Amino acid sequence: MTVRIAVAGASGYAGGEVLRLLLGHPDVEIGALTAGGNAGSRLLAHQPHLLPLADRVLAETTADTLKGHDVVFLALPHGHSAEIAAQLGDDTLVVDCGADHRLTDAAAWDRWYGGTHAGSWPYGLPELPGQRDELRGARRVAVPGCYPTVSSLALAPAMGLVEPEVTVVAVSGTSGAGKSLKPNLLGSEVMGSLSAYGVGGAHRHTPEIAQNLSKVADGPVKVSFTPVLAPLPRGILATCSATLKDADEDVRAVYEKAYADEPFVHLLPEGHWPTTGAVLGSNAVQLQVAVDRDVNRLVVVAAIDNLAKGTAGAAVQCMNLALGLPETTGLSTVGVAP
Amino acid sequence: MTVRIAVAGASGYAGGEVLRLLLGHPDVEIGALTAGGNAGSRLLAHQPHLLPLADRVLAETTADTLKGHDVVFLALPHGHSAEIAAQLGDDTLVVDCGADHRLTDAAAWDRWYGGTHAGSWPYGLPELPGQRDELRGARRVAVPGCYPTVSSLALAPAMGLVEPEVTVVAVSGTSGAGKSLKPNLLGSEVMGSLSAYGVGGAHRHTPEIAQNLSKVADGPVKVSFTPVLAPLPRGILATCSATLKDADEDVRAVYEKAYADEPFVHLLPEGHWPTTGAVLGSNAVQLQVAVDRDVNRLVVVAAIDNLAKGTAGAAVQCMNLALGLPETTGLSTVGVAP
Amino acid sequence: MTVRIAVAGASGYAGGEVLRLLLGHPDVEIGALTAGGNAGSRLLAHQPHLLPLADRVLAETTADTLKGHDVVFLALPHGHSAEIAAQLGDDTLVVDCGADHRLTDAAAWDRWYGGTHAGSWPYGLPELPGQRDELRGARRVAVPGCYPTVSSLALAPAMGLVEPEVTVVAVSGTSGAGKSLKPNLLGSEVMGSLSAYGVGGAHRHTPEIAQNLSKVADGPVKVSFTPVLAPLPRGILATCSATLKDADEDVRAVYEKAYADEPFVHLLPEGHWPTTGAVLGSNAVQLQVAVDRDVNRLVVVAAIDNLAKGTAGAAVQCMNLALGLPETTGLSTVGVAP
Amino acid sequence: MTVRIAVAGASGYAGGEVLRLLLGHPDVEIGALTAGGNAGSRLLAHQPHLLPLADRVLAETTADTLKGHDVVFLALPHGHSAEIAAQLGDDTLVVDCGADHRLTDAAAWDRWYGGTHAGSWPYGLPELPGQRDELRGARRVAVPGCYPTVSSLALAPAMGLVEPEVTVVAVSGTSGAGKSLKPNLLGSEVMGSLSAYGVGGAHRHTPEIAQNLSKVADGPVKVSFTPVLAPLPRGILATCSATLKDADEDVRAVYEKAYADEPFVHLLPEGHWPTTGAVLGSNAVQLQVAVDRDVNRLVVVAAIDNLAKGTAGAAVQCMNLALGLPETTGLSTVGVAP
Repeated sequence: MTVRIAVAGASGYAGGEVLRLLLGHPDVEIGALTAGGNAGSRLLAHQPHLLPLADRVLAETTADTLKGHDVVFLALPHGHSAEIAAQLGDDTLVVDCGADHRLTDAAAWDRWYGGTHAGSWPYGLPELPGQRDELRGARRVAVPGCYPTVSSLALAPAMGLVEPEVTVVAVSGTSGAGKSLKPNLLGSEVMGSLSAYGVGGAHRHTPEIAQNLSKVADGPVKVSFTPVLAPLPRGILATCSATLKDADEDVRAVYEKAYADEPFVHLLPEGHWPTTGAVLGSNAVQLQVAVDRDVNRLVVVAAIDNLAKGTAGAAVQCMNLALGLPETTGLSTVGVAP
Repeated sequence: MTVRIAVAGASGYAGGEVLRLLLGHPDVEIGALTAGGNAGSRLLAHQPHLLPLADRVLAETTADTLKGHDVVFLALPHGHSAEIAAQLGDDTLVVDCGADHRLTDAAAWDRWYGGTHAGSWPYGLPELPGQRDELRGARRVAVPGCYPTVSSLALAPAMGLVEPEVTVVAVSGTSGAGKSLKPNLLGSEVMGSLSAYGVGGAHRHTPEIAQNLSKVADGPVKVSFTPVLAPLPRGILATCSATLKDADEDVRAVYEKAYADEPFVHLLPEGHWPTTGAVLGSNAVQLQVAVDRDVNRLVVVAAIDNLAKGTAGAAVQCMNLALGLPETTGLSTVGVAP
Repeated sequence: MTVRIAVAGASGYAGGEVLRLLLGHPDVEIGALTAGGNAGSRLLAHQPHLLPLADRVLAETTADTLKGHDVVFLALPHGHSAEIAAQLGDDTLVVDCGADHRLTDAAAWDRWYGGTHAGSWPYGLPELPGQRDELRGARRVAVPGCYPTVSSLALAPAMGLVEPEVTVVAVSGTSGAGKSLKPNLLGSEVMGSLSAYGVGGAHRHTPEIAQNLSKVADGPVKVSFTPVLAPLPRGILATCSATLKDADEDVRAVYEKAYADEPFVHLLPEGHWPTTGAVLGSNAVQLQVAVDRDVNRLVVVAAIDNLAKGTAGAAVQCMNLALGLPETTGLSTVGVAP
Repeated sequence: MTVRIAVAGASGYAGGEVLRLLLGHPDVEIGALTAGGNAGSRLLAHQPHLLPLADRVLAETTADTLKGHDVVFLALPHGHSAEIAAQLGDDTLVVDCGADHRLTDAAAWDRWYGGTHAGSWPYGLPELPGQRDELRGARRVAVPGCYPTVSSLALAPAMGLVEPEVTVVAVSGTSGAGKSLKPNLLGSEVMGSLSAYGVGGAHRHTPEIAQNLSKVADGPVKVSFTPVLAPLPRGILATCSATLKDADEDVRAVYEKAYADEPFVHLLPEGHWPTTGAVLGSNAVQLQVAVDRDVNRLVVVAAIDNLAKGTAGAAVQCMNLALGLPETTGLSTVGVAP
């Protein structure tokens, strides 16, 4: 089986990573590549690492250029997916790397993003309880945000064991901010410096994390989330903690069981701690758990590549599930290190 | 007034930073420089940035070589300060950058460091309530750990306003780990990667943070502390949070008042967030506060240079206080950026 | 066809990269993994990115553990390959990532490395004129050094067009120095700093570059080579220049022709310049040429990943050639960026 | 004596560094700070490391706002200095960090920058032979480019000893490119990658290097110059080489003599090599020389901080000379490391 795919937003980081992964996917043929302001230029100018596609010219992102593909990946700014998806029809699998269809609550959408809620699509985090079934055969997939991916996988197995109030501090590389030309994203500013942003619950990924954990907990979970920007291009390391209901709970056993059959989520052996370097370029999630008995708190540390499992890897994983391909096709748990 | 100083551990990062600052201190003459394994070699081999001292030869770290100086800075591995200090006499001001005399509780020392407790010295964080007076005219000073410095200054004003259970996730550059030759500190491992360590309350700075906050709160404060290693040489960015007792508290006003007269601690104007790049090489602490109303939590973000205000800058600041010099002599709030 | 391979030196950077690539090679089964001082430990402790092999225990590097494999990759310190190879027999393909069998001149070996010359093996840079044929069906392969790879490919097509005296300044990431625990390789030292080493023709790769270019030029070529260490884990960018014999030569056409059929060497379109980020993790070589008419000099800039095409990628490419597999099997021209 | 200074272009990197240095200068009072597009905003938004000036509001860059100061530092885009300087009058010392008045040859200006040549000013590299005298009492100073500074100081003593054709490959941090919002300067692009630019003699600093060396050599010197961008904010490491006329020349003695009395230029002892980390934030130049006997070539490696000695430090040094202050006032040879 060969599926023909298109990527909208092919000059950005998310679109580039989708293409990087699909170049190694045996069942995929790469069709239209589209962009907004960069339409008309060659891909080489934007993605010099994708040599086999170097000479491709970027088309305009319109429903017309995207039509006729089996799968369309949307890597667009927030708010642009719904209209295009509506014109693509149900015979096309649409995988949206943007935020438009992640939140199920229209009021939450309005508060955090503003404007009309486009409705929610099957949520592309198959490792959450019950989620995989929703993705098999789906025609629309909302790829999770990078922070919600790592935070939800870090904490989901603990729901029920901890008080429903969690703290997440997640340190991220800069590619999560995309290619937007902002002074604080210049190399000179980023290198040699650390900064926090969206502090005090102001980051848009907060309600998405809360949505995921509340669904697993079957009740409201409060999330204190702070993202920190660090000098590296890729990777998120999340430190997640919450008060344990029972200090003697065998937390490790719970996590081992939760992820025993997951191909991409790895609870490391005791004594080993996750690093983002070890998952660079891969779809792997590395986890480790600890219990702080002095404060009776569970601490989970998790590492992902924000562009891979945090965005494009999840997109490909969901495409595989939706199309009935083996879930791991074209994906790897092998990082590029050092 | 010119004071003659000596530095024990002059080939390491803490010792080097003490010397860097003292080279710009108008009242100081630099005497003996000593080392352990590096004794006999020239300083240039270890501190190529300290050109005016390039030809100095490192002596052995012994009480004999350190005697006869007005001030002795100890930048030694843990457990080595007490014996040397005992031989120096009370006419010498001893400023210990190590951990030996920070903890007041002998049981805590035994649990976290092991061995006999050397007793506690005046604690070198003058910005804590009442602490400055203890340092004026002192003959012995215990310089705080880098994480306790940033965490305690971030949270001290909030004691009383928050429940006595705080969470600190502090991201640090690699110089905090010193020059020890460990595989995980190699540049190839560090660059492009993030990692957590001492997770679950296992880091030795945990009891020191708890000691500081408990003293301010006048009651026990639980501290969940996780350090994260990021790819930069210097800087710590701490994200500190706790549940507010009263969600309508004017937290900002409390912090403004607390640090209004402090020369080195700066609450940034609203809308500005601390970065470690902005304090590089300086003795400044940059702070910002936020209240997350969804979870009723105070979040404080603070940035320091771990080698400067986190170690050597604090050492010089305390020397100034102990000797009766203006507290800011030889120190700066101007960072080296970008 | 499935070939069974072993890797000696599996805990180091070169060995790790060989394994990373072979995990994606369809015709390979990974057998013994051996080490020196790290024998007895699990691979996870040294290569946390190679999750599928995490539980493998490292054996001692001996001929006995390596025997019985179709291919043995040696990633050992210089001087250790010859003895082991001698015991493996000609039915085993031995691919040596070390320097032992690169130099053809015993006197050069003695001057630059010292000790007895082990003799030379087929040199694993198939893109040099005539070299590919030497590698087909070979039983022994000497993988080139990383600097010689990038420098030789940058300059080989120009031999004949330029005076036989070339200047190469190659900036490298730190992984080229391996995992050796040296103070100058600590993250704190490397990040935020640039340094040169082996200046004045003192680097051991100098005679290897000269050997390659002299062979192509069919006459002695003088090489002024300076390596520079920069703060990144992987990648070499070489700036190579030489005086043109004829300023009106169509240099670009010569390079286009030289590499027209090479799967891994890419002369970029005019106006695009190589970056090491674009080739990270890939076997690609990106090149660009310019003529400086003011000084009548050809300048070639070339980028590789020192661990991939510079070491392990070349090793796999040569294995493919030696075994009669398609040369590009398991290798990619797609980099991991940003 | 207190001189009142103004800085035009105070929101950029060069202007920020001038201010950082002047905040530590005992004889300076900081007056007007001006900007282009950033006029009207507070300095904190652009220079968060300059806390003592945080509340200063940036004025428009006009002759009116700059008038009435003893010294005006211009840190403006090329082509903007001449007009403003003309309106300031000779009672004001104007120190131009831009390129407008560096080149003495109008035709060279036209070729490399375009437009009308504004004429040349005393060139602010006092370490070049005879140059210091030109700067004493000057009313106009053209601060050299960063690459010309390091290259000229590296090679000037060798003029006469080498053939008049030199090769310079200089690796630079990103701050040299300023705060301009270009995709290739984003942190995600810069970190983990190396790139060359202005290859083939296309960089505008090429004629300035040639001008300096030709003046010292008293005859035309050909310069092959290639700049390389590396992932660090500050620092330039230049590798400079040329063919020796006499292989037995005692080059080291020549360099020792040339810089024996220079406060900022340091020829390191044999066996030590310059690093940019060691000069970060300082006005020091670190040099080392080697002779490659195999190719009969002198190789000089030199390190500076491009913003300090490469721009703002030189500006302050020249101000000191012009005003008759001790040349080293407010400047340091002590770097901020690690």
